[in-house]
Amino acid sequence: MNKTRHLIGLSDLSREQMAQLLERGEYWAKRPGEQAEILRGRFVANLFFEASTRTRFSFEVAQKRLGAHVLNFIPETSSSVKGETVYDTLRTLEAMGVEAAVIRTKKEGLLQELAESVDLHLINAGDGTNEHPTQCLLDMLTMKQQFGRLEGLTVAIIGDLRHSRVLGSHLHALPKMGVKLLLSGPTTMMPQPAQIPDGVKIVEIDEAIQTADVVMMLRVQLERHSEALYISKEEYHQKHGLTLERAKMMKAGAVIMHPAPVNRGVEIDTNLVESKTSLIQKQVTNGVAVRMAVLETLLKGSEMTWVSSLATAN
Amino acid sequence: MNKTRHLIGLSDLSREQMAQLLERGEYWAKRPGEQAEILRGRFVANLFFEASTRTRFSFEVAQKRLGAHVLNFIPETSSSVKGETVYDTLRTLEAMGVEAAVIRTKKEGLLQELAESVDLHLINAGDGTNEHPTQCLLDMLTMKQQFGRLEGLTVAIIGDLRHSRVLGSHLHALPKMGVKLLLSGPTTMMPQPAQIPDGVKIVEIDEAIQTADVVMMLRVQLERHSEALYISKEEYHQKHGLTLERAKMMKAGAVIMHPAPVNRGVEIDTNLVESKTSLIQKQVTNGVAVRMAVLETLLKGSEMTWVSSLATAN
Amino acid sequence: MNKTRHLIGLSDLSREQMAQLLERGEYWAKRPGEQAEILRGRFVANLFFEASTRTRFSFEVAQKRLGAHVLNFIPETSSSVKGETVYDTLRTLEAMGVEAAVIRTKKEGLLQELAESVDLHLINAGDGTNEHPTQCLLDMLTMKQQFGRLEGLTVAIIGDLRHSRVLGSHLHALPKMGVKLLLSGPTTMMPQPAQIPDGVKIVEIDEAIQTADVVMMLRVQLERHSEALYISKEEYHQKHGLTLERAKMMKAGAVIMHPAPVNRGVEIDTNLVESKTSLIQKQVTNGVAVRMAVLETLLKGSEMTWVSSLATAN
Repeated sequence: MNKTRHLIGLSDLSREQMAQLLERGEYWAKRPGEQAEILRGRFVANLFFEASTRTRFSFEVAQKRLGAHVLNFIPETSSSVKGETVYDTLRTLEAMGVEAAVIRTKKEGLLQELAESVDLHLINAGDGTNEHPTQCLLDMLTMKQQFGRLEGLTVAIIGDLRHSRVLGSHLHALPKMGVKLLLSGPTTMMPQPAQIPDGVKIVEIDEAIQTADVVMMLRVQLERHSEALYISKEEYHQKHGLTLERAKMMKAGAVIMHPAPVNRGVEIDTNLVESKTSLIQKQVTNGVAVRMAVLETLLKGSEMTWVSSLATAN
Repeated sequence: MNKTRHLIGLSDLSREQMAQLLERGEYWAKRPGEQAEILRGRFVANLFFEASTRTRFSFEVAQKRLGAHVLNFIPETSSSVKGETVYDTLRTLEAMGVEAAVIRTKKEGLLQELAESVDLHLINAGDGTNEHPTQCLLDMLTMKQQFGRLEGLTVAIIGDLRHSRVLGSHLHALPKMGVKLLLSGPTTMMPQPAQIPDGVKIVEIDEAIQTADVVMMLRVQLERHSEALYISKEEYHQKHGLTLERAKMMKAGAVIMHPAPVNRGVEIDTNLVESKTSLIQKQVTNGVAVRMAVLETLLKGSEMTWVSSLATAN
Repeated sequence: MNKTRHLIGLSDLSREQMAQLLERGEYWAKRPGEQAEILRGRFVANLFFEASTRTRFSFEVAQKRLGAHVLNFIPETSSSVKGETVYDTLRTLEAMGVEAAVIRTKKEGLLQELAESVDLHLINAGDGTNEHPTQCLLDMLTMKQQFGRLEGLTVAIIGDLRHSRVLGSHLHALPKMGVKLLLSGPTTMMPQPAQIPDGVKIVEIDEAIQTADVVMMLRVQLERHSEALYISKEEYHQKHGLTLERAKMMKAGAVIMHPAPVNRGVEIDTNLVESKTSLIQKQVTNGVAVRMAVLETLLKGSEMTWVSSLATAN
């Protein structure tokens, strides 16, 4: 079996490796709509075992802009009903000549388990609440475009931290890039203390908002909460959301981000979503760019100098 | 935000604009199977919030023949379960570089509402029983091929008028093109009187069939009727359908059309579907051609002289 | 209507025709990942009325490697809910310019019924337990690669013969190619005696395994059995499966095959699936190659010398 290279989590990558991916992401961000033929005639598969429009389409656009052939796996209509394991599905794709699989799954750590036993490239599009590395990369690219740097920025991540698909990657990656990280959210939605690295501070929402260069609001995972778990949407908004009043407390030059999809009027006032200080649309645009960078880097191999040092994820 | 151009309804188009779309449709109809690269590397999305094979495939063939990249949204597996609004989905697609969205929805007027706030091209593939403009364009193209003109033709639209996805567009467009329009159907399936423009006549089915150059039978929307609403399929066929007997009453040179899919033996005798006087297959073929014309015109912009005058739909 | 050419069952093909398909399959097997443009700009549709990942993806890879445009029909979201018949769907696709339809269906003999009335190429991807010709072709290609010939080989097909989608094709094709065929399985899973051609022997599992050059294990169609029908998985494995012990009884040079997906630990010990004697991954790879050969041959027409003699299936 050849040495494989995956993107399973940002915890596997060095600061330099992330910087190089961001640089390549910036390259593509500067070429909106450009059709490349770098992966012409090569096959990648999107295996989304959990529903997603946004992320799957973003990967699909990235794949097609690079010239790749795309296979989309739709759980309900596939032989997953026959009890085929993900491992066997991947081995099958491999045998068909598919070179990379983008996977979203509820099962944390699934890609890690598979990393050493399959011969195609695995790209994590979210494994439970563990990692969602391309989301974090696109967030970092967006910050870097805005501020010219990551080093020294203060980023506040606010809201439903416990159920966030994104937080895991940010906790690893942002401090490594020199970002000061603040967390804030309702007590019932805080991550396990063991998950929080040294140097990451937990603060009250108003302090978070007043201090941060980047106010990153997280989606309340409404579908993962039972009714009893929390208060009404309106109460949530008032107590834990980015209201118009709180937005006024932001520093000059500070920006709003959100991994989307947004619950308008819950974690964020609907009028802020597309306001001047919001980079939410920019994040989506950058999602395509960083995913092109990731796909290109993993599948092209040798031309990126740092690839040789990108460890097999394990 | 740039000025956008949409195809939301034929009520927005002038006679000349429709004539130019039909002319371009005829251009593509004369080039079956020709692969163009006019939209090479550009992205369009098909968002069908209601099931459809025929229309989605027709758009997909048109898109791919023009060289576009196609994203297919499948409601069940997407984050529509997360309650993301159509507006937010469109803005997301826009940020990814998608330039046009073909939308089918139950919600009448939805595209109209969105038209001014999104920056990609919207193409209506049916919004409830409001408009289905490309279906009407393909019908007109088929008539024009058959008779060499639209002006002065008599077209009878017969059957389940109330639940028709198509009728709305025909009521606007056909009279504008100089067609004399007759409607006929069971009382319980007639459109609201307010919907019927001056000059459109309601007649008995036998009169409609004897008078028309084009006998257009509509599908009984079986799934939208409760059992009690009407009589058996056989009775419907005898009383309101195009039976073999009624077909014999058609004028020499008159033709049968149907937007399909057909309920064989209900609104039309099964033997008439593929008979010599039926243009149903031709309609399907022309569907690809007019959709190529629409996509090309909206996305290409300046090269079609009339585009500049195509109003932002609202 | 033009003369159409289909691949409905191997029972329709002569020995020479199969040999030519295998030869062309070997051509593509030697060119892994090669992108051809033989079907550039031409449309094929995959209509899978039953769930399948493996077979649909295999066809899709084959189609895209040949440069074709691919339409994927997904039952739940299509107008099959409107009661459109398969015939009408095919005629619609035909009118749109689609040249071939790959069909999987529960209904045995469906393609046969449709063969004479549609004008596009039909390719059977499994019709109930009747035929699954491309699976059989890929199996034969895999054997031929391994042994250099088919003539004179002994192949044992073992397991759930009654519910196999594959067996029908093998019963026709393998004896025609000079293969000696042995069948073995639990009494309740044996095919109807009338289905078994002369010269095909039914033997005990141990004899089958000791005698065969190819031990082909079939998937227990767990989803088609009621609980009461058979014993536990463990008991099935011990009595009717390829255990590690039984694998040791195989002849020197004998190989294991399986149409997959595999029930690990039921019809085959999990450690045998990817063992040195297993050709299961090779089968998957060859699936793409033979499907390319089939698509190319049917759609290209005249350039393959034998195509002119490939009878309209009926």
